[in-house]
Amino acid sequence: MEIQSSRLLRKVLIGATGSALALTSALAANYEDTMPLETVKPAPNLEEVLPHPEQREEAMAKLAEFESRTGKRPNILVYLMDDVGWGDLGVYGGGVAVGAPTPNMDALARDGLMLTSAYSQPSSSPTRATLLTGQLPVRHGILRPTLYNEPGGLTNAVTLAQLLSDAGYVTQAVGKWHMGENPGSQPQNVGFDDFSGFLSVSDLYTEWRDPYFYPEIATSEERTEMIREWAFEKYWVHAEKGGTIEQVKEIDIEVSSHLDEYWKDYSIEFIEKMADSDQPFFLYHCTRGAHFDNYPRDEYEGSSPAKQVYKDTIVELDDILGELVAALERTGQLENTLIFIASDNGPEMESWPDSAYSPFRGAKGSTWEGGVRVPAIFYWKGMIEPGRASDGLFDIADIFNTCLTLAGATDSIPTDRFIDGVDQTSFLLAEEGLSNRKYIYYWLMSYFSAVRVAEYKYVQFAESDSGEGIVNPGGFTGYIMAFPYYHLYNLYLDPKEEHNVSIRKLVFTDLFLEAMKKHIDTFLEYPPVVEIITGH
Amino acid sequence: MEIQSSRLLRKVLIGATGSALALTSALAANYEDTMPLETVKPAPNLEEVLPHPEQREEAMAKLAEFESRTGKRPNILVYLMDDVGWGDLGVYGGGVAVGAPTPNMDALARDGLMLTSAYSQPSSSPTRATLLTGQLPVRHGILRPTLYNEPGGLTNAVTLAQLLSDAGYVTQAVGKWHMGENPGSQPQNVGFDDFSGFLSVSDLYTEWRDPYFYPEIATSEERTEMIREWAFEKYWVHAEKGGTIEQVKEIDIEVSSHLDEYWKDYSIEFIEKMADSDQPFFLYHCTRGAHFDNYPRDEYEGSSPAKQVYKDTIVELDDILGELVAALERTGQLENTLIFIASDNGPEMESWPDSAYSPFRGAKGSTWEGGVRVPAIFYWKGMIEPGRASDGLFDIADIFNTCLTLAGATDSIPTDRFIDGVDQTSFLLAEEGLSNRKYIYYWLMSYFSAVRVAEYKYVQFAESDSGEGIVNPGGFTGYIMAFPYYHLYNLYLDPKEEHNVSIRKLVFTDLFLEAMKKHIDTFLEYPPVVEIITGH
Repeated sequence: MEIQSSRLLRKVLIGATGSALALTSALAANYEDTMPLETVKPAPNLEEVLPHPEQREEAMAKLAEFESRTGKRPNILVYLMDDVGWGDLGVYGGGVAVGAPTPNMDALARDGLMLTSAYSQPSSSPTRATLLTGQLPVRHGILRPTLYNEPGGLTNAVTLAQLLSDAGYVTQAVGKWHMGENPGSQPQNVGFDDFSGFLSVSDLYTEWRDPYFYPEIATSEERTEMIREWAFEKYWVHAEKGGTIEQVKEIDIEVSSHLDEYWKDYSIEFIEKMADSDQPFFLYHCTRGAHFDNYPRDEYEGSSPAKQVYKDTIVELDDILGELVAALERTGQLENTLIFIASDNGPEMESWPDSAYSPFRGAKGSTWEGGVRVPAIFYWKGMIEPGRASDGLFDIADIFNTCLTLAGATDSIPTDRFIDGVDQTSFLLAEEGLSNRKYIYYWLMSYFSAVRVAEYKYVQFAESDSGEGIVNPGGFTGYIMAFPYYHLYNLYLDPKEEHNVSIRKLVFTDLFLEAMKKHIDTFLEYPPVVEIITGH
Repeated sequence: MEIQSSRLLRKVLIGATGSALALTSALAANYEDTMPLETVKPAPNLEEVLPHPEQREEAMAKLAEFESRTGKRPNILVYLMDDVGWGDLGVYGGGVAVGAPTPNMDALARDGLMLTSAYSQPSSSPTRATLLTGQLPVRHGILRPTLYNEPGGLTNAVTLAQLLSDAGYVTQAVGKWHMGENPGSQPQNVGFDDFSGFLSVSDLYTEWRDPYFYPEIATSEERTEMIREWAFEKYWVHAEKGGTIEQVKEIDIEVSSHLDEYWKDYSIEFIEKMADSDQPFFLYHCTRGAHFDNYPRDEYEGSSPAKQVYKDTIVELDDILGELVAALERTGQLENTLIFIASDNGPEMESWPDSAYSPFRGAKGSTWEGGVRVPAIFYWKGMIEPGRASDGLFDIADIFNTCLTLAGATDSIPTDRFIDGVDQTSFLLAEEGLSNRKYIYYWLMSYFSAVRVAEYKYVQFAESDSGEGIVNPGGFTGYIMAFPYYHLYNLYLDPKEEHNVSIRKLVFTDLFLEAMKKHIDTFLEYPPVVEIITGH
C-alpha cells in the first residue's frame, strides 16, 4: 500500500503540477520526447530555430522533385481574412455550432495541415506588415491599425513581395491593404506588380455614412459633405508597379457590400491569366470581410443559419475561398500552389454582435490568446500530407521565410535587420513534420508581453481586465498591466488562461527568463524602431 | 443615399438586434426557413415534437430495409464517458489543441453525425437516469450524484434496458453505474441481463486512499481501517439478471487505473459472443475515465502530448472506443450497430487540473452551457450519412425514445408517466435529417432554469458566479440566482453567454413564456417526484 501510494503520488504530482522529471518532456513541443530542445541560429540576424535535419532533408527532396517535375517554383496564395476568430471555423469547433458553416475551409483543413497554435499580432496592420516583412511590429514599426490617411511604415521595409518579384514571381495584391496610405507604403511601391483593393479598412469608408452609427452625420447633408471633403482616400483603387493609384469606385455602403465579390473576380481573372505563364505567382488576397461593419450583399443576406451580418459574411468568405480553389483546379494549377488561409487577429468584441468568436480569453488588441491565436490552414495538393493537425508553434512572420525557401530565394533575406520569421518549409512538407519554431514572442504595442514555449505561456504584461496593476493608461489595446510576478499558463490544461500556475512551475523560471533575455538581446544589436518596454 | 441607408439600416437592425421580421427565420432551427415551427404531441404523456413527415418516411423505409436485409433489429452501443468536455474532442476544437488527440472519436464524427447542441443534465447520476428512463431528473428523482452507499431512484423506473430486453434484446451494462447502490436500483434488477462494473464513481473508491488528497487517512493505518470498515461497496462487482452482486475485485488506486482496460475486455468479449446470436444487443458501456481522480495505467502514463493524468485518460478512452469499433468490425457487426458516443456532463472544474475543457461558460453542476452541452456523436456504417454536423437540438433523454423506435418497441413506452425524450430516428437516418426537438429544458436541481429554442436560450435561474440575486444558498450546484427579469442569450453570436440581449428581443417574450408554461403544465397532470420551483 505504501509503495503503491508513493508511486501514484509521484504520478499525480507530475501530472497535475509538474516536477523536475516532467521538465524535459513537458517542454518538448509537438509530442516528441526525443525532439531537440536545443535551437540553432541560422544567421546572426535570424530567429533561432529547432533543427530537424531529417525532416528538412525529406522536405527539400520533395520540393526539388516538385520543381524538376513542373519546371517552376510553386505558386503561393495567401488568403487572409479580417477579424475572423479561431472559433469561427467548423474544424476549430465553430461552423454549424456558431451559426455559420465553413465547408470549404473545413475541407482544406482536413485535406491539409491545420494549425492550432498559429499566432498573429494583436491587430490588423501589425499582422499584415509582419507577414510581408518577417518582422515583429517593434521592428517594422506598425504597432496599431493605421487610421484615416495615415502614412504607413513600409517605406524602408524589405517585403516578401519585393523579394519574390526579384526571384521571378508575378506578384499580385488584392483587397485590403491597411499598411499606410502614403505612396511609399502602397503595394505597387513595395513589390507588387499590381494591386486592386482599398488602402484602409472597412469601417473607415462606411461607418460615417450609416445613419445607425452616425445619425448626426449621415442624416445631415452638410455634415456628410464636410466628411466627404476631408482629404482621405474614399475609393477602391488600382495601381500597377511603380505607378500611382487610380480610383476605381467610391466606397459607399452598397459598394462595400460587393467588394469581396469584385475582388474575388479580380483574383480569379489573375489565376486564369497565370495558367499560361512561365512565371510562378504570389497572390496576396486579403478579404474585406469579416471586419465590422458587415453589410452582406443581397445574395448572402440571411444566408447563414444565424441570419446575422457577421455570420452571413463568413458564409461568403468560405464560398469565395471555394471559388478561388476551383479556379486553381480548373486551370490546372491546384497542385502547383501552396494555399495559406488565416486571419489577421482575434475577434473585435467592441463591435459585438458584428463580431467573431474565439473560445479564448481576451479579444483583438490584447495578447491574451483570444487576441492573437488565429485559424491557420496550409493546403497543397500532393505536397502536404492530408489529415494533419498540429499544435506546433507558428508565427505569421514565418510566412516570410517559408515562402522565400519555396521560391529558392533565401539568399535574398536582408542581413542588415533582424528577421523574426522562421523557415517552416519542413514543418509543412515532411509527412510528419514538426514546427521549427521554439518560441512565440507576444508584443502588446511596445510592451514585451509574454513568451510561449510548447504549451507554456509566461506573461509579464497583459491587457488588464481587472483594473489592477495598471502601468499604461491605455491607447489602442486598452489598459496594460504588469503582473507583480510572472503569470504562467498551461495552454493544454487551461486554454482559457484562468489558472496561473507560476508558483508550481518555479523550476521552469530560468528557462523562460533566458528565452526572454535572448530575445531582448536581439534588440541590442538590431535596435527597434520604437522605444520598447521589456519588463522585469 | 437616403433610400440606401434606410435599406441598410433595416439590414443592420435585423442582423444585429432582431426585429419582428427576423422572428420566423431566426427561430427556425436547423437552417430551414420552411421547417414547421408547430409541434405536435404524439401522446398526452409525450414531449411535443417537430414533425417532419417526409424525413420520417425516408428514415423508416431505410430502417425497414435494414431489418429485412439483416433479419434483426439493430444493435445499440452507448459509449458514455465521464466528465469529458465539449472541447476535449478534436472535432469540437480540442484534440491536439488541448494536448490530447482523439483520432477515433474524430473519425467516427466525420463519418457519422456530429451534434453540436446535445444536452446532458448538469451532473452524472441525473444524466444516466435520464438516458435510461427518457425522463428529466425532477421526474425520475435523481437530482444529484449519489454518494457512498446511497439508495438510488430507479426502483420504480421503467428503463430502456427493461423495454429492450422485453423486445428481445440481450442487454449488457459495463462500467460505471452510479444510479444508486440499493438492490432495487442495481442494473441486474432494472433490465440488464448482465453487469460488470462499479456502482458508484471513481473518487469515492480511491480519494481517501491517496495520501496526496487524504494524508490524514491514507498515512494512518488506523484511520484507513476505519474507512475500510465503513459499510459501502468498495468492489468492482458482477451480477446477472435478477441475481445479487458478487464482488470481483476491491478497487484500490492500482485497480482503478486498470478498470477501463478490464471493462473494455469485458465488452469486447460480449461483442464477440453476440456475433453468433439471433438476438440484437444493447451494450451500455460507461467508462471510469475521465472522472477525477485519474490514475492512468503505466501504458498510458505520459501518453498524451500534455503528459497529464486527465489528458492521458482521454487518450486511453479514445483507444478503447477504437478497440470496441474494431471488435464490431472484426465480428461483422459494425454495419448492424448504432453507436452513440457522449459524455454525462461538462467539465468538473473543482478538480482542476484533473479536468475537462469546454469553451463555454460554467462547468459541471450548472446549467450554463459549460455544464450541460456535451460532445455527442452518432455513427452507423451504411445507415447514417457520413460527414454530417448538426446544431439541431438533442437531449440525452432522446436516446430512450430513439432506441425504442429502432427496436420496434415504441408501444412499450409507459403511458402512466411523462416521457421527456423525443424520437430522433429520422434526424439520424434521413440523409439530411433535422432534429425533431424544438425545446431544451434546463433544470438546475429542482429549479426550472431555462429553455432553449433554436439558438436562443431564455434563462430565469442560473448558478451564480457573482453572488447577486441568490435565491438558494447552495447545495450541489452552488448558489442559485434568479434574474430580476429573464436573460436571453443568442448562442450563435454569443456562445459564451456574456451578452444578455433580452431587452432587444422583447418580441420573443411570449414565445418563451408560452413554451415554459406548456412545460410546467406537464407537471400538473404528471406530478414531479420532488417539489419544483418553476419561477416567475
